[in-house]
Amino acid sequence: MKSFNSADSDLLEEIILHRRDVRGNRFLDKPIPQKVLDKILYAGVNAPSVGFSQPWEFVLIRDTDRKQAIKASFRAENRKAEAAFCQQRQESYKKLKLEGIHEAPVNIAVFYKPSDHPVLGQTSMKEVGRYSVVCAVQNMWLMARALNIGLGWVSILDPQKVKDILNAPQQNQLVAYLCLGYVDYFYQSPELERLNWEQRKDFSDLVKEESY
Amino acid sequence: MKSFNSADSDLLEEIILHRRDVRGNRFLDKPIPQKVLDKILYAGVNAPSVGFSQPWEFVLIRDTDRKQAIKASFRAENRKAEAAFCQQRQESYKKLKLEGIHEAPVNIAVFYKPSDHPVLGQTSMKEVGRYSVVCAVQNMWLMARALNIGLGWVSILDPQKVKDILNAPQQNQLVAYLCLGYVDYFYQSPELERLNWEQRKDFSDLVKEESY
Repeated sequence: MKSFNSADSDLLEEIILHRRDVRGNRFLDKPIPQKVLDKILYAGVNAPSVGFSQPWEFVLIRDTDRKQAIKASFRAENRKAEAAFCQQRQESYKKLKLEGIHEAPVNIAVFYKPSDHPVLGQTSMKEVGRYSVVCAVQNMWLMARALNIGLGWVSILDPQKVKDILNAPQQNQLVAYLCLGYVDYFYQSPELERLNWEQRKDFSDLVKEESY
Repeated sequence: MKSFNSADSDLLEEIILHRRDVRGNRFLDKPIPQKVLDKILYAGVNAPSVGFSQPWEFVLIRDTDRKQAIKASFRAENRKAEAAFCQQRQESYKKLKLEGIHEAPVNIAVFYKPSDHPVLGQTSMKEVGRYSVVCAVQNMWLMARALNIGLGWVSILDPQKVKDILNAPQQNQLVAYLCLGYVDYFYQSPELERLNWEQRKDFSDLVKEESY
């Protein structure tokens, strides 16, 4: 049986701590070799999935016109998002770079494909199918970082627009839209923490013993 | 800037490939030291979260009566689940051990706590808050494996019953219920693959270029 040692778990912790959400201002104009991209996708398809349903599909996007269409959805949704923040934050919000659709050489749209038969473990909580897809995304994110590749998750999008642009089957659901590329550097801490947009929560406040 | 090498990314791949969903028949009656548990939780709170919202809360459960109450919800939901499978699969389904609530020394209920203010990045796709919590679970799962600790995700539960048992705030949402413990061994491949419950999908069928 495969056994890991403390150097192994410490290395995993390093990868976890150095993973960042990367925006457009950090991506380099340098292609990702197919072999490297395959290693990232391989990490994804080896994620846990409810009932071994593997309900994930990945669309790789490099075409400029297609990126342009996705970016248009981002712009429309981001204008709406600005309105959600109060005046003071609105100014800070507008200064933030929140995506890297064009700058990243590869975008990956990650979909949940519902099964056509009952899935073991998905009978009480239907959402766990989509959660399996998120596990795949997190595996990809960590593997990208271990390969020194930046990844940014763009969630300011209209999922239906993205589906239309990618000609996705109607039953599929967009779970994540990812931008990947080599970067000039990775920040030491999350950008929104550095900018004091949100404070880091105390570990002790997040963990309860036995019940609330 | 922290840079990883190919031995590092290969080790991460090993951890990813050797991670298993562990059921009750594999757990050992051996406590997990607090320091080890903290390392797993630390991996969780260092997951990505939309707008750095860190919307996760963790309840650690060791008490036998509380586990008993959770197990009762599993039993009720599992009886309903059996009905979802056709006759032939029903017999196979009934033989499966699908949780390790009592056998695992520690259970962790993982909740999504909605923010009381607008969250950057969560304005178009509300579900990304819960997806952040799933990223935390996947970090914990990988760290547990790197520490040679088994983890099983129990999704055959009534989330409302679990919330009531743990006295969780009404606005919180149960994302995952995890069973953790040392194990006698980890299977080489997913149990449901070994049992031919589901087939492994072809990598090439899951990846599309530019669009569907």
